[in-house]
This record gives sequence, C-alpha cells and structure tokens, in this order.
Amino acid sequence: MKLGKRTYAPDKRVFLPYVADIAGNDEANGNLRHYIDFSTDCGEWGCPSHEKAETKFRDDVTMRLIERAGLDAEDIDCLLGGDLLNQIVPSSFSARSFAIPFSGLYCACATFGQSLAIASMMIGAGMSKVICCTSSHFATAERQYRYPLELGTQPTPASQRTVTGAGAVLVSDSYPGWRCPEITCYTLGEIIDLGCTDANNMGAAMAPAAYDTIAAHLRETGRSADYYDLIVTGDLGRLGRELLVELLSHDKVCDGSNVNDCGCLIYGEKQKCGLGGSGAGCSSLVYCSYFHKLLTAGQLNRILLVPTGAMLSKDSSLQGESIPGIAHAVAIECR
Amino acid sequence: MKLGKRTYAPDKRVFLPYVADIAGNDEANGNLRHYIDFSTDCGEWGCPSHEKAETKFRDDVTMRLIERAGLDAEDIDCLLGGDLLNQIVPSSFSARSFAIPFSGLYCACATFGQSLAIASMMIGAGMSKVICCTSSHFATAERQYRYPLELGTQPTPASQRTVTGAGAVLVSDSYPGWRCPEITCYTLGEIIDLGCTDANNMGAAMAPAAYDTIAAHLRETGRSADYYDLIVTGDLGRLGRELLVELLSHDKVCDGSNVNDCGCLIYGEKQKCGLGGSGAGCSSLVYCSYFHKLLTAGQLNRILLVPTGAMLSKDSSLQGESIPGIAHAVAIECR
Repeated sequence: MKLGKRTYAPDKRVFLPYVADIAGNDEANGNLRHYIDFSTDCGEWGCPSHEKAETKFRDDVTMRLIERAGLDAEDIDCLLGGDLLNQIVPSSFSARSFAIPFSGLYCACATFGQSLAIASMMIGAGMSKVICCTSSHFATAERQYRYPLELGTQPTPASQRTVTGAGAVLVSDSYPGWRCPEITCYTLGEIIDLGCTDANNMGAAMAPAAYDTIAAHLRETGRSADYYDLIVTGDLGRLGRELLVELLSHDKVCDGSNVNDCGCLIYGEKQKCGLGGSGAGCSSLVYCSYFHKLLTAGQLNRILLVPTGAMLSKDSSLQGESIPGIAHAVAIECR
Repeated sequence: MKLGKRTYAPDKRVFLPYVADIAGNDEANGNLRHYIDFSTDCGEWGCPSHEKAETKFRDDVTMRLIERAGLDAEDIDCLLGGDLLNQIVPSSFSARSFAIPFSGLYCACATFGQSLAIASMMIGAGMSKVICCTSSHFATAERQYRYPLELGTQPTPASQRTVTGAGAVLVSDSYPGWRCPEITCYTLGEIIDLGCTDANNMGAAMAPAAYDTIAAHLRETGRSADYYDLIVTGDLGRLGRELLVELLSHDKVCDGSNVNDCGCLIYGEKQKCGLGGSGAGCSSLVYCSYFHKLLTAGQLNRILLVPTGAMLSKDSSLQGESIPGIAHAVAIECR
C-alpha cells in the first residue's frame, strides 16, 4: 500500500524471525563483542584469497540462518544478496552453494535496506521465506577501491574502515509465535549528489542522501522522529553523522537526539578504525548482531534503519566524477 | 500468486505500454535496423569517455521513455537499473539526472529479466509506474573484462560482441487502451555452474542456466513450449543456443523449434560480431526495438523472454573460478 511518493507499507505482515551474522577480528573485539554470533581471527579464514573468504563468510551465515530457522534450502523462495565487489562475485558465487532462486542487488552500502524493501514486496507477491544477506571485507574493499594492503598506505583523516563481516536475515510471511520484529513500512531512496569528490570521505558524500530519505519518510508517514526509539543510518561514520544531524536540525526535521549510525557503533574508541565502520556488511552485521536482539528482548520497540550507500567506482573517481549517495529506510517494529 | 517453486503470477495486471531504445552503430546496421528507435554513429557520443557515453545512453532512453508516455519524472515510482560496469556506475550516475527512487540490480546480462520480475512485484506492492532500464557498451565492457580496444586483441572463435545500446520499458498498473503486452508470470533463476572456465565462451557457461529456468517455467506453469510463439533467451549466441536446444531436446522439454536468442538476432550474418551479441543491453534493446513492436502489432501473441547472465568478474577468472550462470524468465503476452 502506497503511503506517500516513496513510502510503502506491506499489505501482508512481514516478519524477521531469525538472523545470523559473522564478523572479522576487529569487529568481534569492538563495541558489539557480546552480541556477535560468530567471528574469525583471520580475514582469509583458510581460503586462498580474501575474495574467496568473503564468499565463505556468506556461505556460512546463510547456512547457519537456514539451520537456525529449522528449514532446508528448498524452503527459501529467494536469496537477495549484495556486496561491494565488482560484479558482486561473493554474492553470486555463494549462491552457487544453494539451490535457491537468486536476485543480485547493488546499492553499495545501502544494499541491506534495499534488500529488506524488495523482500517485503516479494512476500506481497506470494513468497513465504526470503533471505537478505549483505557482506563486505576490509581486505577485498581496500585493494579494489584503494590500494593493496601490502603497500601499508596511511588512511586519510576522514576515512572509515570497511567492516569485515556479513549479516543475513530471514524475511517471513508467518508469525513465529514470539515477540518478533516486523517491517511495517519502507521509504525508497533517490540518488543525491551534492558534488563531493573525496572518495576518502564517504560520510560527507552520503549524509545528504540519508537526510533526504529520513525527511521524506517522516513527511510521508506523518510520524515525528520520536516515534522511533532510534533512527540508525548505515555507515556515515562520525563526520557523516554530525553532518546529518546538522542538516536535520537546521531544517527542523528533528533535533538528532535519537539519531545514531551503525558505523559509529561497531568499533570501540580505542580501535584505530578511522571515523567508524563502512561497507555493505556494516548495517547488516550491526542489525543482525545487535538491534535484532534488542528488539526481540524488548529493549527497543521501533527503529528506522537507514542503510546508506556511495555509488562510486574506482574508475568513476579516476574520471573526475563526484560521488552519488543513496539511502533506503526500513521501519522495523515489534507490535 | 505463487504458481510453483520459482514461478509467480502478478496479482494485479502488469502492462508494458511504452518502450524506448538506443543503439550503437553496429547494432543499428544489423538485422534490426528497421526497428531501432535511435542510434549513434560514435560510441563516445560527444562524451570524454565511453563510460560517460553509456551513462548518456541511459539518460537519453529514460528521458525519451518518460516523454513518450506523456509523464513527468515525478510520476515514476521507481527506476530499476543495471549494467555490466563495476558498481553499475552508468545506472547510478544516470539516476542522478532524475528525482526518481532508484534500485540498482545486478544479474549480469540477465538483469533485464530480473528487473521485469521485480517491477511486477513493485506494481503489486502499490506502485503505479516503474521504469526498467539495462544497458551495455562494447568499449566499456572490453576494457573492463578483457583488454583495452587500443591493443587490437583478436577475439577468440567462441566470443560474442557486447551490444552497445540500452532499452527502457515502462511497467504500468493501468491498461493504456490499446493492444498492450503484459507480464503474465515470471520464473526466477537459480545460479547454475557446470564448471565452464572459459571467459570467452559465455554461451556455454549460460546455456545450462537457461535450460534450467525454461524447464522449471514450463513444469511449474503446466504449459508446453508451443504455448509460446517464441522462447527467446538473452545472449547465448549461436553456440550457446545450440547447446540449449540440445539440452532441451535431450530431456524432451521441447524440440527447440521456437527457441531463439536476442544475441543471435541482433547482428547480420556479414557483420564480424563473433557468435552474436551479448551484454545487459542485448535483451533490453532487442525486446524494446523488435519484440515489443511485433507483440503490439499482433505479429506475436506470447513470448517467453529469458535473459541470461554470466556472473563472473575479471578477478574471479584470474583467481581460477568457473563461471556461474543465471537466467530469469518473463512471460509477456497480449490478451
């Protein structure tokens, strides 16, 4: 059902009964250390390359999710996946391991939000169980977007650290019988590009898109920001979050007091991880490990999850292009 | 409504009233020369790079489609886009030009089928107008996947030519008042990988996926192959099509007499374009320029469009991986 120009509520109830996550070493030793499901000490995890390890991360988390839900792969109607690598190879290569219809998505680090919105539509179209899985990996992203790790290049002051990890969530049409998070509505993002060209300052490139989507969501649902316990963006980092709060309070959308960011939450203060986490796995790992537990346990009732993406490529930056940002918002509530 | 494990019929009627397309020089001088909307002599089309030209192709075709439908950009509920470049930059950079919610998709050359299926779900979720646009470009694909054109590398015998072009289709919830193609059902593809590692023989890598999806579609709908005037794959090329027909007839799914391929149709016999066209723009250009006109004119009544994709990247090939294939089938009928 259309609630506004960009906002829709599912016609059937859309539940998120089960999640699974996996994290790298830094992520598992950060602020969320007591919440992470499973972690690996080594980014290669016994694989011959970091790219293959990212695929294995996805295999592991998808398999664990299916087992946890007491299902078989054949019970899953669709696997929605995305990551940051060229041609989303970890997603499609991992999908080889499962005889499940596959749909590859790409909205950079906003893919998790996009996948939850599309999964809601799939439930409406007659599917019963859909898996949304997004991942990222520090080593694969560094060498694809920036420099090989072996060079030991210093990060710039505004840079963030790509999260090594993956989160997968089961989207279901049936009430599991316990307090269960639900997708109650979602607002799709538009591409917003204010001309930021610094590929090491993603927070600044994405904050205007996050602002645009959050403002549209609140306007179209008629909700005020304090309807939500928390409005949580994907990976703006500390600078991007500051810019977002400035935009929101300047335009009197909200005062920003309940606005946080997965990228700001994941690492501890003492970890040398730049201005916070980033990557397509950032919001999915933080949702699956942390927010999902708080919602289920009754410590939170309603969150607006707003994964944010920077739609650049290495080539687009080399050709002098600015960075288009996007953010998709998903309201997740227990009711 | 679920018709089978992988097949769904839209609950509301889903119409395809308008299309627009653009082609490069070779494509505009091939078999479909009397059907192509608009073409450019030069692959750069006044842009400083081929990548920017591919973005301009998309801008042009999207704008033309919106105008042709007598709409404004604000009437469009979502822009579903995909292409072959890293991080689908032509799609997201083109989406900057339109204030339309954007959802980036990636299933390689099967993206057009995926986009039509997801657009059908979006109409079901309450959207009224969705645009599906996919594109590819010979020069951008060559230098990303193979070698820069300046090297003048010889193509191998099994290779195909990436189509320079784009097709965009308006997916609508309302009957336009004339004989209009409709999406009546769709079958989602699974990743199929039989171990082909030759990145210059995409037809062989994708044919098993096309077989799998076509067989699933016919089984789950209870239709025989001759229900359709034509079953048309995306870009198998001549070798891939031969393999597909062999698989279909071996397993007695059908005799292959009404099976064709967009990649086999697009270029003329005398054009030196390898075993046919390929690319995310191949099936969308051929549908929008050719099949859509035949359906509207009553020369065809029902086709099963099965865009096919090879989910490799340059890195995955260099790391010795085989090529996962995928195919999504969409039944397009006039009734």
